[in-house]
Amino acid sequence: MVVNHSHLSEFIKAVFLKKGMSMQHAEICADVLSFADLRGIDSHGVARLSGYLRLIDARRININPVFKWEHRKKTQIRLDADGSIGLVSAHYAMQECIKITHDYGTAWSGIFNSNHFGVAAHHAMQGFPHNYIGLAMTNASPLVVPANGVERMLGTNPICVAIPGKNGRSFVLDMATSTAANGKLEIAQRSKKSIPEGWAIDSEGLVSTDPKILSEKGSLLPLGSDAEHGIHKGYGLGAWVDIFSAVLTGGSWGPWAPPFVSFLQPKIDAPGKGLGHFVGCWDMDGFNDLEETQNQLDAWMDRFKSSQALPNSEVLIPGEPELKMQNERLENGIPIGSEVWQDLMNISKELNVKL
Amino acid sequence: MVVNHSHLSEFIKAVFLKKGMSMQHAEICADVLSFADLRGIDSHGVARLSGYLRLIDARRININPVFKWEHRKKTQIRLDADGSIGLVSAHYAMQECIKITHDYGTAWSGIFNSNHFGVAAHHAMQGFPHNYIGLAMTNASPLVVPANGVERMLGTNPICVAIPGKNGRSFVLDMATSTAANGKLEIAQRSKKSIPEGWAIDSEGLVSTDPKILSEKGSLLPLGSDAEHGIHKGYGLGAWVDIFSAVLTGGSWGPWAPPFVSFLQPKIDAPGKGLGHFVGCWDMDGFNDLEETQNQLDAWMDRFKSSQALPNSEVLIPGEPELKMQNERLENGIPIGSEVWQDLMNISKELNVKL
Repeated sequence: MVVNHSHLSEFIKAVFLKKGMSMQHAEICADVLSFADLRGIDSHGVARLSGYLRLIDARRININPVFKWEHRKKTQIRLDADGSIGLVSAHYAMQECIKITHDYGTAWSGIFNSNHFGVAAHHAMQGFPHNYIGLAMTNASPLVVPANGVERMLGTNPICVAIPGKNGRSFVLDMATSTAANGKLEIAQRSKKSIPEGWAIDSEGLVSTDPKILSEKGSLLPLGSDAEHGIHKGYGLGAWVDIFSAVLTGGSWGPWAPPFVSFLQPKIDAPGKGLGHFVGCWDMDGFNDLEETQNQLDAWMDRFKSSQALPNSEVLIPGEPELKMQNERLENGIPIGSEVWQDLMNISKELNVKL
Repeated sequence: MVVNHSHLSEFIKAVFLKKGMSMQHAEICADVLSFADLRGIDSHGVARLSGYLRLIDARRININPVFKWEHRKKTQIRLDADGSIGLVSAHYAMQECIKITHDYGTAWSGIFNSNHFGVAAHHAMQGFPHNYIGLAMTNASPLVVPANGVERMLGTNPICVAIPGKNGRSFVLDMATSTAANGKLEIAQRSKKSIPEGWAIDSEGLVSTDPKILSEKGSLLPLGSDAEHGIHKGYGLGAWVDIFSAVLTGGSWGPWAPPFVSFLQPKIDAPGKGLGHFVGCWDMDGFNDLEETQNQLDAWMDRFKSSQALPNSEVLIPGEPELKMQNERLENGIPIGSEVWQDLMNISKELNVKL
């Protein structure tokens, strides 16, 4: 199935409204999820809709949260998201950072008592209309081992840095800190292929090429994959994200980060509340004249694009493939796989929302 | 040779004084370089002293710089380092950020027209006495290809995040964004060993295991090493550092980043001036109560340390091996290899500074 972007977005909005969410929050959810599908990050788009709904039904997502803001310093805010869906709490936290950045040049928000925040890039790019650089990170359900470890201690903990360029040509790095994200294993599983060495280990810590290894108590490996190739770096990045998102904010960190799937209960005795996120921005005009900086960024991209590539290959700018996909899918619609389509049809039927 | 830390530090200070540096600047240089040796980051310590001296002799490092500060926003500063050694300019930029953070909770400085800034962790950890989290990054001589590329476009561009803990037990992630740093190839070269696949490629882009490949127009690979293992992530991180350090600030970015070695001239037609750095800090008290946050960080470290490890192995906290080394070398002295020792003896003789 191929669906028009605005149609998909309207459907998502209608679904959340039907569940009792406010119009404002439902619109944000629809924006963030359909943006992921537009950009080709299908694992973080409408494919997650049924998962969010199950968390709502399990009362793990609070659909009518009352946000508690704590402005602790002039440029630092804490947000207790009251069990909100992260799509919404991270969005509002970033909006608050943007307001403060107008006056001070930067602002930062730690968010706790939250849930899965969707695609990090959507939050990090919120400041683009003001030419603000965005940073967004979140912790996530534990699936990744530390370097030298065999126990799931970290999520795929993404980092996104978004730097606004001229004419919509921006730098958007949005990366999981594991070598491969969960979604890549699912793709291999569906196509009955083995996975490369360096993505996952079994419960004993041995390298595994089985795409189903996560359902057999295996774990994902941090970026770098092994000691010779810098696994301690990927582990360090994932740990940084966990500490910023949850240790600094009061969220549940490390192995206590609540699972996304509703059939797994959050562990008891958690050291904090819910998932945590960390977002903020810098005014791009704060280090050098804005126009000069954006001209330099444009020249940087040109120089990298024209650098010598491997045969039949091309050097890409972080965010370039996603922008290309966005333009293509705005034009031609968003393809939805049959499993996800069935999921959406079930939701449509159950909630009596037209798909 | 084994040298006492304070003795080594005094020697470095005396050398820079002899070259005409002010006492204040010479003390900072001695602090930063000897700190690297203490922490076991030998590639960034006194082993670099002769390199800095050659850059001074070549008039590429200005030993008496006049810093030009531009406070562009309340929490954002630009520093024109006037050709300073980066050890000093990054230090002062961080000190300025710390002052501003007292009032606003965060502050950030972009630095350009600078030179090699030594070990990133020293700058990032400057705010520890105030319980400020530090971030420090710098661009560097081009040695690393982009994903899909065969041309040297990026340096090993390190990122350091330093989070102060209780009782001196802190989180210090200080990592090059390439799979392996240059120094690891030099070690393999000296011991006549080949290097693992995934560290470097030859001038055609083919994987190389030759430790001398960099002197034969080869290049280093970004963290991730190949397409299957997330090379685009390491490339994205290195690119982020390049843009923050030099594109935002007015430094020379990408392939124009000036080389560390004095026998290579900086490329003409550079888009900016000198190397660039990016430093700044967050008040740790700005997201949640400081004591609570540091207790949580301590618990985080305990939980990770006690997580299940591979047989005969141990999960480490980023910065833990360096702290252990620091304590050991403060007690037992700093071992200096024979090549570096010969270098120091030559400097001692030439400048008539007692070693």
